[in-house]
Amino acid sequence: MAEYRVGVLGATGAVGQKFIHLLRNHPWFKVTALGASERSAGKTYREAANWVESTEMPDDIANLVVSACTPDEMDVDFVFSGLDSGVATDIEASFASAGIPVISNARNYRQHETVPLMVAEVNPDHLALIKHQTFDPNGKGFIVTNPNCVCIPLVMALKPITDAYGIKEVILTSMQAVSGAGYPGVPSLDILGNILPYISGEEDKIGLEPLKLMGKLEDNKVIPADIPIHATAARVPVIDGHLLSVTANLKEKPGDIEEVRDHVRKWDSPLADLDLPSAPAKPVRLYEDFRYPQPRHQSLAENGMQVGMGRLRNASVMDIAFTALGHNTIRGAAGCSILNAELLHAKGYFS
Amino acid sequence: MAEYRVGVLGATGAVGQKFIHLLRNHPWFKVTALGASERSAGKTYREAANWVESTEMPDDIANLVVSACTPDEMDVDFVFSGLDSGVATDIEASFASAGIPVISNARNYRQHETVPLMVAEVNPDHLALIKHQTFDPNGKGFIVTNPNCVCIPLVMALKPITDAYGIKEVILTSMQAVSGAGYPGVPSLDILGNILPYISGEEDKIGLEPLKLMGKLEDNKVIPADIPIHATAARVPVIDGHLLSVTANLKEKPGDIEEVRDHVRKWDSPLADLDLPSAPAKPVRLYEDFRYPQPRHQSLAENGMQVGMGRLRNASVMDIAFTALGHNTIRGAAGCSILNAELLHAKGYFS
Amino acid sequence: MAEYRVGVLGATGAVGQKFIHLLRNHPWFKVTALGASERSAGKTYREAANWVESTEMPDDIANLVVSACTPDEMDVDFVFSGLDSGVATDIEASFASAGIPVISNARNYRQHETVPLMVAEVNPDHLALIKHQTFDPNGKGFIVTNPNCVCIPLVMALKPITDAYGIKEVILTSMQAVSGAGYPGVPSLDILGNILPYISGEEDKIGLEPLKLMGKLEDNKVIPADIPIHATAARVPVIDGHLLSVTANLKEKPGDIEEVRDHVRKWDSPLADLDLPSAPAKPVRLYEDFRYPQPRHQSLAENGMQVGMGRLRNASVMDIAFTALGHNTIRGAAGCSILNAELLHAKGYFS
Amino acid sequence: MAEYRVGVLGATGAVGQKFIHLLRNHPWFKVTALGASERSAGKTYREAANWVESTEMPDDIANLVVSACTPDEMDVDFVFSGLDSGVATDIEASFASAGIPVISNARNYRQHETVPLMVAEVNPDHLALIKHQTFDPNGKGFIVTNPNCVCIPLVMALKPITDAYGIKEVILTSMQAVSGAGYPGVPSLDILGNILPYISGEEDKIGLEPLKLMGKLEDNKVIPADIPIHATAARVPVIDGHLLSVTANLKEKPGDIEEVRDHVRKWDSPLADLDLPSAPAKPVRLYEDFRYPQPRHQSLAENGMQVGMGRLRNASVMDIAFTALGHNTIRGAAGCSILNAELLHAKGYFS
Repeated sequence: MAEYRVGVLGATGAVGQKFIHLLRNHPWFKVTALGASERSAGKTYREAANWVESTEMPDDIANLVVSACTPDEMDVDFVFSGLDSGVATDIEASFASAGIPVISNARNYRQHETVPLMVAEVNPDHLALIKHQTFDPNGKGFIVTNPNCVCIPLVMALKPITDAYGIKEVILTSMQAVSGAGYPGVPSLDILGNILPYISGEEDKIGLEPLKLMGKLEDNKVIPADIPIHATAARVPVIDGHLLSVTANLKEKPGDIEEVRDHVRKWDSPLADLDLPSAPAKPVRLYEDFRYPQPRHQSLAENGMQVGMGRLRNASVMDIAFTALGHNTIRGAAGCSILNAELLHAKGYFS
Repeated sequence: MAEYRVGVLGATGAVGQKFIHLLRNHPWFKVTALGASERSAGKTYREAANWVESTEMPDDIANLVVSACTPDEMDVDFVFSGLDSGVATDIEASFASAGIPVISNARNYRQHETVPLMVAEVNPDHLALIKHQTFDPNGKGFIVTNPNCVCIPLVMALKPITDAYGIKEVILTSMQAVSGAGYPGVPSLDILGNILPYISGEEDKIGLEPLKLMGKLEDNKVIPADIPIHATAARVPVIDGHLLSVTANLKEKPGDIEEVRDHVRKWDSPLADLDLPSAPAKPVRLYEDFRYPQPRHQSLAENGMQVGMGRLRNASVMDIAFTALGHNTIRGAAGCSILNAELLHAKGYFS
Repeated sequence: MAEYRVGVLGATGAVGQKFIHLLRNHPWFKVTALGASERSAGKTYREAANWVESTEMPDDIANLVVSACTPDEMDVDFVFSGLDSGVATDIEASFASAGIPVISNARNYRQHETVPLMVAEVNPDHLALIKHQTFDPNGKGFIVTNPNCVCIPLVMALKPITDAYGIKEVILTSMQAVSGAGYPGVPSLDILGNILPYISGEEDKIGLEPLKLMGKLEDNKVIPADIPIHATAARVPVIDGHLLSVTANLKEKPGDIEEVRDHVRKWDSPLADLDLPSAPAKPVRLYEDFRYPQPRHQSLAENGMQVGMGRLRNASVMDIAFTALGHNTIRGAAGCSILNAELLHAKGYFS
Repeated sequence: MAEYRVGVLGATGAVGQKFIHLLRNHPWFKVTALGASERSAGKTYREAANWVESTEMPDDIANLVVSACTPDEMDVDFVFSGLDSGVATDIEASFASAGIPVISNARNYRQHETVPLMVAEVNPDHLALIKHQTFDPNGKGFIVTNPNCVCIPLVMALKPITDAYGIKEVILTSMQAVSGAGYPGVPSLDILGNILPYISGEEDKIGLEPLKLMGKLEDNKVIPADIPIHATAARVPVIDGHLLSVTANLKEKPGDIEEVRDHVRKWDSPLADLDLPSAPAKPVRLYEDFRYPQPRHQSLAENGMQVGMGRLRNASVMDIAFTALGHNTIRGAAGCSILNAELLHAKGYFS
């Protein structure tokens, strides 16, 4: 069985910790190097990290010495990046240039012309962009990104409907968990028994990233989808799990709502044959009982990699409405990157 | 100064308690009779009620003996009704028939042809329906209702925009506080750190009640507005204050968003001249800072009678989007009834 | 491998559901019969139960037909009881009399002279009481109970200290999760952003049950320990995990606090040799970092069967102080019963 | 009527904001100067402060220009200090030296030999220490402090019992609201649905500060009380209001618990004759119903200045037990300082 030596960039941050947590028993990927800021470099991970996961810090990771985020100091086959956007541009490019693939959750290269913005089950064909990347003259290093934590469950829930009818326009309100803001993140004084009706920068990403992701690959470029998406992003006192209330107009009118539901029920993972360790058996599950999915109860379905869809119904104003739930730090961030990496392996990009 | 002897029907329930709380220092209305179920009748209010308000039960109320909900046993000028819908139809009719006006928060008569469904600042002209009621052959008793706790902030926030442009269609997601479900209401196991994406029956009311309320009075009837409203009603772990995320198409296209904002800023209460004790000076306040309004911080603005409006902006799919916040048990329930009663007094209906 | 056909009494309640959840993959115990009230009898479990666990109702259980709680209708080797105390006395006796052992979480027989009140790691010798039970003239049926959800982590955390020094007296404040009150249980209006400083009946149990459990078996009777325990039981807005703040006087004065800590660190499960499937490898874990254990992060340690102990230190008033955390519905209820049953099997009581 | 020009030191912080909020309609004290760090100096308060109070920033305050915290730039009669302990020592001394009295919530001078550590209703005689202060050779400037937010409700609740029986030793667990940690303070990821069992530095203050406060003034010095106090300080997901679970041994044994209760019920404010605007009519209220006081419902009793006491009962280990609730940022911080200042005015110290 393949085993890769894997680095984590931004290892002490919340996303970095989630990478470490999710990879602790991974059959293919073994974390062997941790990169963080100069402040942490030289310390053991146990000393450097303020561990916020509920599971314990893995012992082998705890004793690793953190290095700076430079390719020289990290002898690995590829890296996952949970870097802050303030520093990701240069660091990620330096790794790609040095021949080390970067699978990134940072937003810096999401709109870069030759960088795939990927959700493995939605647009696996976009990996073809990689060969046009010029970071590494030797062609070994590259960058692959995944979108924002709201966009991931959104495009996944829309995928079966897109395939069947096409999407014309979307209105959504997202009720987002506090873990999406990292640590320390949202002050408890702001959110206990309260809702924050505005998350800076979030709605722009929701309006933009799905368009590239749902776009068509033509002539080695992605032609973005032309789907107006209007979003209101609110923060709610929930630990994990973004819940989206979505209304959509479709390109082709569906027969009746039961037909739409059937398309969701029958939509199967395009990755099914690949046996990827982190791929959910059922990427989108339709809950028939209108009381579900709920963040606290269903976010961890299929280890947090499944998107729950509920309340799928006709809308009196647009065509259909539904809710979508995704675990924001697993499916919506680190887990999405890991699945992307597994797909890259399966498709022979790590060679 | 006018002083009315006032009864509260359903006095031991959550809405009944809120009536008692809000009326404790009212300059015109003095609670002198309390009606509840047979189980409570004959007990003092202190014995009968499981008081859930934070302020203490007023001493004079505590010592009142609760009676059954029959006009014979309640010698009052009018009643407020916080009755359960299971019993409100007959009881409210019996009071109206006996010549005792009923100002009701129950839903039973909201769609009755001659019963005004009122928000005092929005459709005061609908009071003209009262004279066509036939409950009381002597013409003294009648019924006036107010809508559901989501509909109230919705129609109030829409009012300035309706006046300026007309409303064509509305999509909204409501994030509703637990106090809206009464007591004991929502189990803590269901809602702590969670969101419930479905509130049974709620969305139907939201789609229906605003139409009557925003309807035109013609030939002694209300012609309902023709405005499709699609709602998703979710329960959130907030004590008081329903927050609505609203998107709307307008009949006439506005110049720019600043023009729309100005219409909201300049819209003044049509009740301003009446000096009603519970009327907010500014029924709808536009918050310019996108971080507001928030349920925990702004629900009690103007004693819980003001609706907060925020994030008023252009939408990429429909014309405009905004948030609206209303205190669900004050502005959205008992307080709305009390203001309706104040208007009835001012207009000479209690005579 | 042994396989028992197991019944669950009170199967539709919160404790009953937890039994079903915890037993879903049990190597020895297979749930084959479900007993509930007459209202549920005759329905499938899927119809009868309002399932509140996050994991899905197991399919094989969902299709079982619920019976009444009578030994005639439940053909099983033994039963777990999650019955309400209002009905447990007669029902549990009827099963024991019919030769069916009852492993009960109900409080009814906890103080019965010949019924063991058991925490498997603390007083396994008390099982010897069983042979003096007279429920079943044939000697096959019997009753074994476990204590209240606060008492379990309390006696477990005290056990290593008892063994080393003896306990003279205890003062504690418990901060108890809402799941301890069952479903619907604590109304959200009472507990969101709040603390309830009183839990009816709880403090009496905390003062009483540990005495029997920590008592000595002499002449076929349990001589209760003579340890005054003063408790204040508060409800807090936490889903799972009771956290106890404990102060204690010891019979023999310890050398220094590090010596006390060492006794806790070194205390091993007396069940280690028995290979019981639900037994935690380390029943009591001492956290060295004063910030732990915390309910949301550590309650599920060792599948919810481990008690976390923290902040072990000298007290300025009594001898020592510490915190103890136990998952109240697993270690503190259904899981404790299941481990008791495993011990009963290992010791040959099911034969 | 006296009117003082008052400055607030640390005006942009959480305590500073609470001072401004509480003083907005004060009959004697008018905030005319605001001191903060160099970063804020020169800006208007509206620009400098991230206002976290629910009420709006008062308009007159919003337009004040913030100055540095130096006596030269603040032309006031006295100052309230909400300074961080990191800077309070020098700044507070500089004001006192310049002849400007400092009424401080900071901890720096709480143990200073000639600085009174005051709760106005508990040890008003300690003001006599002031005349021994040497900060200001002209004798006009001085420093008065109040204790930590847990110590205040503790010493207030103990006061009637101290007067009647004397206190021998105390064990307590405090369940502390997040507002006690300031802003941004406790991250929501740490506290939503959780309890933090440790608050750094808190327990030392609780063990120490009450001793000075409950000490005797003899020969111009305070002889600290000799009362061992063992505390466990936990953080809970509550916005405002620290709830204490207290057990105490008394010097003289009380007759029965009803006698103890009577002493609390009958204990009246020693400030009653002074008509101080912020003094609660009843500084300590005994709740007879064991379900109260609760943080969310009773913290604001008497404008947040009353301490609620509940569950007063015999304890099986020590003599008595009770709960005490105090609003931590009003009674437990800024409000306590303001009442101290009112007492200073009444006693002629501002002259």
